[in-house]
Amino acid sequence: MDFNKALDFYKQQRRKIIAQNYVGFVSSWDMETEAKENSILAESEQMAVLSELSYTLTTDPNFEQAVNVLWQNKDKLDEVLCHEVEVLQKDIQETKKIPMEEMSAYSVLSSQAYPIYVRAKTEGNFELFRPYLEKIVEFAKKQVVWLDGELHGYDILLDKYEPHYTQTQYDKFFDVLKQRLVPFVKQVTQQKPIVPAWATASYDVAKQKEFCEYLRDVLCFDKSRGIMKESEHPFTTSFGTEDVRITNHYYENNLVSSIFSVIHETGHALYEQQCDKALNSTLSGGGASLGMHESQSRFYENMIGRSKAFWAVHYGKLQQTFPTLQSVSLDEFVDYINLAERSFVRTEADELTYSLHIMLRYELEKELIEGDLKVCDLPKRWNEKFFDFFGMTPPNDQLGVLQDVHWANGSFGYFPTYALGSAISAQLYHHMQKDFDVEQSLQSGNTKAINEWLKEHVHKFGSSKYPDEILQYAIGEDFDPTYYVDYLINKYTK
Amino acid sequence: MDFNKALDFYKQQRRKIIAQNYVGFVSSWDMETEAKENSILAESEQMAVLSELSYTLTTDPNFEQAVNVLWQNKDKLDEVLCHEVEVLQKDIQETKKIPMEEMSAYSVLSSQAYPIYVRAKTEGNFELFRPYLEKIVEFAKKQVVWLDGELHGYDILLDKYEPHYTQTQYDKFFDVLKQRLVPFVKQVTQQKPIVPAWATASYDVAKQKEFCEYLRDVLCFDKSRGIMKESEHPFTTSFGTEDVRITNHYYENNLVSSIFSVIHETGHALYEQQCDKALNSTLSGGGASLGMHESQSRFYENMIGRSKAFWAVHYGKLQQTFPTLQSVSLDEFVDYINLAERSFVRTEADELTYSLHIMLRYELEKELIEGDLKVCDLPKRWNEKFFDFFGMTPPNDQLGVLQDVHWANGSFGYFPTYALGSAISAQLYHHMQKDFDVEQSLQSGNTKAINEWLKEHVHKFGSSKYPDEILQYAIGEDFDPTYYVDYLINKYTK
Repeated sequence: MDFNKALDFYKQQRRKIIAQNYVGFVSSWDMETEAKENSILAESEQMAVLSELSYTLTTDPNFEQAVNVLWQNKDKLDEVLCHEVEVLQKDIQETKKIPMEEMSAYSVLSSQAYPIYVRAKTEGNFELFRPYLEKIVEFAKKQVVWLDGELHGYDILLDKYEPHYTQTQYDKFFDVLKQRLVPFVKQVTQQKPIVPAWATASYDVAKQKEFCEYLRDVLCFDKSRGIMKESEHPFTTSFGTEDVRITNHYYENNLVSSIFSVIHETGHALYEQQCDKALNSTLSGGGASLGMHESQSRFYENMIGRSKAFWAVHYGKLQQTFPTLQSVSLDEFVDYINLAERSFVRTEADELTYSLHIMLRYELEKELIEGDLKVCDLPKRWNEKFFDFFGMTPPNDQLGVLQDVHWANGSFGYFPTYALGSAISAQLYHHMQKDFDVEQSLQSGNTKAINEWLKEHVHKFGSSKYPDEILQYAIGEDFDPTYYVDYLINKYTK
Repeated sequence: MDFNKALDFYKQQRRKIIAQNYVGFVSSWDMETEAKENSILAESEQMAVLSELSYTLTTDPNFEQAVNVLWQNKDKLDEVLCHEVEVLQKDIQETKKIPMEEMSAYSVLSSQAYPIYVRAKTEGNFELFRPYLEKIVEFAKKQVVWLDGELHGYDILLDKYEPHYTQTQYDKFFDVLKQRLVPFVKQVTQQKPIVPAWATASYDVAKQKEFCEYLRDVLCFDKSRGIMKESEHPFTTSFGTEDVRITNHYYENNLVSSIFSVIHETGHALYEQQCDKALNSTLSGGGASLGMHESQSRFYENMIGRSKAFWAVHYGKLQQTFPTLQSVSLDEFVDYINLAERSFVRTEADELTYSLHIMLRYELEKELIEGDLKVCDLPKRWNEKFFDFFGMTPPNDQLGVLQDVHWANGSFGYFPTYALGSAISAQLYHHMQKDFDVEQSLQSGNTKAINEWLKEHVHKFGSSKYPDEILQYAIGEDFDPTYYVDYLINKYTK
């Protein structure tokens, strides 16, 4: 296959892969937000068939050959295509190393494990889920054997979610947290904070929606290229820059939950909407990595959404929407949304304690994949470690080892990207502030200036570069957790 | 390829075709009810790629061979599979006769023609659309040449939408209408009816929705296996029996529009929901044909939804929902929903005049495909024929030749199925009444007895038989338009 033929074939196959990506996008959206439970059952079978079709597209020997020819001629490719081909080549080689029949068997195991996990969590019964988790961990360990090459062990799994980030990077990161943040958290959270009565009062759900739509507009989500809807758990999904969708969930007795969800998800959405449109016809659109994506959602949620400067402009509107808040001052409100408290559940954790929850999971994953930790000992080990970090013990496994779905999905290596994202957001914030007065820019009533900075420094590249390359381009530095710890200690010392 | 290998391959490929059908289902639902206009543009490109993938699945030479081997061994197949293979064999042979490059070119023409058609309709400017329609008609004529075989000319197109129905059948049908219905309509509609003031009063849209949900439940739509939503034009779509979706559209000043839409679409939906579940894993689910499908929606809309017996039970609830109607008697309401009036637009036509609109289109299609009628003469010919049938002339092409999208889609042969469906519904009604007292069964407050009869006589077969076979099974007769004309003349004579 000569270069031109390879390029033609590549582009033809890429069109098909993009169309299959659209199928994944639209069918998961439908299952999460439209289809009834009975329908989902019938349709999950179709998803299995479609994922086989996707697998076939990626592992097509002609496609592999085309990718190889392009890679051998990389000097003839533009920067975007060159990166894309590099990533794909690695992808194809890795996918091929996993035996097809093992993949199929695992897909079946996965579907079976999920409802068992849900039941086990509901009943707080780890034993119910244990045999499934054992097989899931076993598959993860096999993956590590199949994919052994430049990387080894747990690093192989970490790299799948965050390219170029392995234990060397994460250990350095978490060591800093352990040395400086763990003792600080113990000190700050010694006293249990008092939750004001208004925080758990009743707030009309229709009005919450109205206010969340207002916030979405304040953050300049482009409604002509996306929608906002409801779902059980808030999430963002997209098909290129032209169709970006977010969801929210409203609780009558928890006003701030929907507020911070919409800010968080709009952060993800802006990353997608502000990518260079030219990348829509490539495989280099979307976010550069999970960590990079989380850095954007966390940036809007924490640096903007929890700042006094932001609420100085928008709190009046909130009070207007909910007269209950007329008697709550701006300072009281901002204090409340920045309360720090030790808690058992990651998804309910505040900004200060969040990454400690992640560190716990990271250390357990290392022990599971590379160490001697057995699945049957996992709940005990979870509780021991939890006590080390937080000085308290989960009363049951529902609030402990069973709380997250990630392991039931076999997503080992995913968790650390959450903490990484939070830390990158602080580093970006530091450098953004050197370029312009971020707090003052919020007085305009929207986040245009901030969006523009992030677009030019991060968003526009999509996934056409590795995340560490984007960070170098954006701020001329490698990842450095000091900014994050400084930011947290400074904020919570005040 | 031996029989067993052929059967295995067939089942594997069928799994993939069903998954692609799911993709078509979920993506059109998304485009019609979720995605923003900007998104649709980006996503229609994906649809083109996906339709190529579907084409490749159907025309795969191995699949063709498997289908042929099964057909040669049809004595070893069960009834459902035997019918499925017969239909597929014909499908594959026909698809193969259409040159791939002509197909692609036509797909491009189609996408380009649609927005032009919409503009031409809005502006009432036929000349704008004429060059596109000329090419579309040209393609239809070419199809007739490529597919020439047992069938010829317009019959080839008719058979695509309603198997076993060709001009011989339709001519007989429309001749009866022409002889008996056209003069009757002229007589009945001589006087323009007076529309009562309450008919165009303002009706709260939220309350209309509530009442339409009530009607949907009265008709026993299974909500655990489907949803109802809003869209520009009401429609029904489904993926097997487990996910059946209908839409409605609400107009503040037209209460009966949403009422008859929900009854009509629920009729379609019941056909899908009451199909034998075992057919979900085959290609023999869904309705047997367009005409058969329309016979079900029209049955619920006209025979049930316009009957006094139905409203005797439910009008109280309607009055309760809309106090404006407290001063309108049941008889006045039923009279209004059965008014007959000559009008220009098919979709707004009443039960009596509806099929005359179809007959007009049928005759014009014959002239376009087999006769000398040129596209440039179409508006003039439309108006002449319209005058013959209705005794009046459309004031412009928006209310004339441009009103329907079907020709812009190249769907020649589709229209007659609408009239056929209406006529079949009357024939089924006649026979259902011999089995039980339909009007009296409505006193129960729901349509369970009616649904059950239709399930056992029609719905459960899905598309596992030809529509004429189902009619024979259901009522022991071939299609006979006399029932329909008798029904209409009897009803409108009263």
